[in-house]
Amino acid sequence: MLDFELIKEIAVTSSTKMVLLVIDGLGGLPHPESGKTELETARTPNLDMLSSKSICGLSQPVSSGITPGSGPGHLALFGYDPVKFTVGRGVLETVGIDFNIEGDDIAARGNFCSIDEDGNITDRRAGRISNEKNEELCRLLNGQDIEGIEVIIRPVREHRFIAIFRGKGLSEKVTDSDPQRTGIPPREVTTIHPEAEKMAHIANKFMERSRKILAAQYPANMILLRGFSKYPDFPSLEDIYKVKAAAIASYPMYRGLAKLVGMHILGTKARIEDEFTTLKENYGHYDFFFVHIKGTDSAGEDGDFDRKVKIIEETDSQLPIILNLNPDVLVITGDHSTPAVLKNHSWHPVPVMLYSKWCRPDAVSAFSESACLSGGMGHIPATELMPLAMANALKLSKFGA
Amino acid sequence: MLDFELIKEIAVTSSTKMVLLVIDGLGGLPHPESGKTELETARTPNLDMLSSKSICGLSQPVSSGITPGSGPGHLALFGYDPVKFTVGRGVLETVGIDFNIEGDDIAARGNFCSIDEDGNITDRRAGRISNEKNEELCRLLNGQDIEGIEVIIRPVREHRFIAIFRGKGLSEKVTDSDPQRTGIPPREVTTIHPEAEKMAHIANKFMERSRKILAAQYPANMILLRGFSKYPDFPSLEDIYKVKAAAIASYPMYRGLAKLVGMHILGTKARIEDEFTTLKENYGHYDFFFVHIKGTDSAGEDGDFDRKVKIIEETDSQLPIILNLNPDVLVITGDHSTPAVLKNHSWHPVPVMLYSKWCRPDAVSAFSESACLSGGMGHIPATELMPLAMANALKLSKFGA
Repeated sequence: MLDFELIKEIAVTSSTKMVLLVIDGLGGLPHPESGKTELETARTPNLDMLSSKSICGLSQPVSSGITPGSGPGHLALFGYDPVKFTVGRGVLETVGIDFNIEGDDIAARGNFCSIDEDGNITDRRAGRISNEKNEELCRLLNGQDIEGIEVIIRPVREHRFIAIFRGKGLSEKVTDSDPQRTGIPPREVTTIHPEAEKMAHIANKFMERSRKILAAQYPANMILLRGFSKYPDFPSLEDIYKVKAAAIASYPMYRGLAKLVGMHILGTKARIEDEFTTLKENYGHYDFFFVHIKGTDSAGEDGDFDRKVKIIEETDSQLPIILNLNPDVLVITGDHSTPAVLKNHSWHPVPVMLYSKWCRPDAVSAFSESACLSGGMGHIPATELMPLAMANALKLSKFGA
Repeated sequence: MLDFELIKEIAVTSSTKMVLLVIDGLGGLPHPESGKTELETARTPNLDMLSSKSICGLSQPVSSGITPGSGPGHLALFGYDPVKFTVGRGVLETVGIDFNIEGDDIAARGNFCSIDEDGNITDRRAGRISNEKNEELCRLLNGQDIEGIEVIIRPVREHRFIAIFRGKGLSEKVTDSDPQRTGIPPREVTTIHPEAEKMAHIANKFMERSRKILAAQYPANMILLRGFSKYPDFPSLEDIYKVKAAAIASYPMYRGLAKLVGMHILGTKARIEDEFTTLKENYGHYDFFFVHIKGTDSAGEDGDFDRKVKIIEETDSQLPIILNLNPDVLVITGDHSTPAVLKNHSWHPVPVMLYSKWCRPDAVSAFSESACLSGGMGHIPATELMPLAMANALKLSKFGA
């Protein structure tokens, strides 16, 4: 992929508008009975019609065989090399619950866990306690001051929470206390760089105190911390592409990822129709829109083939709201595949289509894994979609004389 | 391609089994009369049947236009960047005759050559002396002790032999004595790094002594040495992919290449049926198998189109031995093309298919250069086949949260 420096040199502002519609986990695998994927099964007249005017292909999120998490999947779509631009687990969970992490905060992902009388972990997830219990326990741990460092605890879901360490002189360069297995005690947090002495000390103090506070709370009688991380300092979309970018996403994780690259976050209601209407209402104010649909990924992870088909069909039926805006460039794809038969994110490339007046349409006339295989983009690294969209929006000038 | 560090992080062990069947020099060019390649000419019902359940494509061993030797071709298939992970000519010849090179040994490729009374080279290959003569001359040169360095000489074929320098303080950083042309004397071996003083000195002494020993042996009255090299320290497949890997290859060169990446070498008889039976007999003990078929490449190099077709057909007819094992992932490809009409390795991409339950099959229903062109893998760098196989074996966890 190209260096951002080159893009920065040739990016120009213009009045054209680009929409990136991400249908999360869009790609699938064939249903064992029909031999058709979710997208091939869904009735999608609008997507199919658009594909016949578009250039189509298959987007490779990271590299052959690599299954991306949501972070790498989206960063690649925004044009950021997902191997180079990584987001720590703690920060990702933090942005995932809309918590406003500050510049020098260190975030860690926490688990409530069970330990026996010898201190050995017996269940890394404390029997997946209820969200209510989680909230109650987070209140017990929240708000401590440890040698001038404020410890902020917020529940995520079930046994999961985030720990934010706020104060002077901290560093993320420490090891996890979570040994990722049972039968042994939580690990001591140690430094992986001398500058992190204080962070390790505070984290261990916090672990120690938590054990006392939670002593009577079996099965959630201890905590594990991992993925200590700092809010990363990524160049913004505006820096690189000279675009005013806005994000429309009903799930906090994706708003968080959009914020990482400097997008403005638009408030929206949750249904697909609502998100598309939010786009319509704000259409005059930005020149790049990231619109995120979550349901397809959730259905895929639940192994619910039919629900994934239905959400694709719902997306299709609402698509005219976007089409009526007549965006100069409309890219429709997913951040990765989530085949219902795998019940998980997967490594399979993702159908993509790019519509613009200048796209050089191919012969593809249906939007699906198999149809896109013969599309004009071929197999394209996801990181190249953003430069390609920029070009189609006539926002990239010539490289070299 | 991805860094091994990333793969190491996400590789997990599992009970699934992968088989990589390399049909050496598989890719071809059309026969001038039929317009069909060797693979297109061969009757291959089993390969065709498998292709219809597989994802197909064309594998690019190194880069467009680059014709790989056996070393780069195989290293790429094992997932190693063949431009970065290079094997010296001396070492390659050495592993090619099953000679057990030791840690600090320096290996060089040797030629018997002809020189005239002025010492100028008249034939770099000494008229391609017989294997018998080669063996006789190697016995004359073998086993010398030069200032504490043992010089081991072993015949390869015709005018070719290997020279192993064994002892303390040697380095491979020296120039070739082979000037690669006639009409001038052999070059003096010189250092390209100060640490190689001793090596250069010993090599020149050995050249000098060889000239005396061979004085009456015209046309093989002198030697040339090139490709001084040390056994490379590559990370093993087990280090990178956490797999227990075994190699089944009837030719020593391929066993040697497999050893370089830490595979266990299984003893086997030479016929294709024998090799496949060796796989069957050892199937329980490893989770990755490299099976190598040599005949296709030899036939291609001999320009014997029909023999190459026959060996492909023989491979196809024995394939059920592998299919009956029902491997979780089966990859079938070549390390490069060897078109019979070129009588040589070539740069053309190689047909590849990957079968697994999770492969997302495409519409390809024949295994050939032309059919694979519309396959779901598209043009894939050979180095990405191993990560893709790992993913299909569910041996790679998610990258990033």
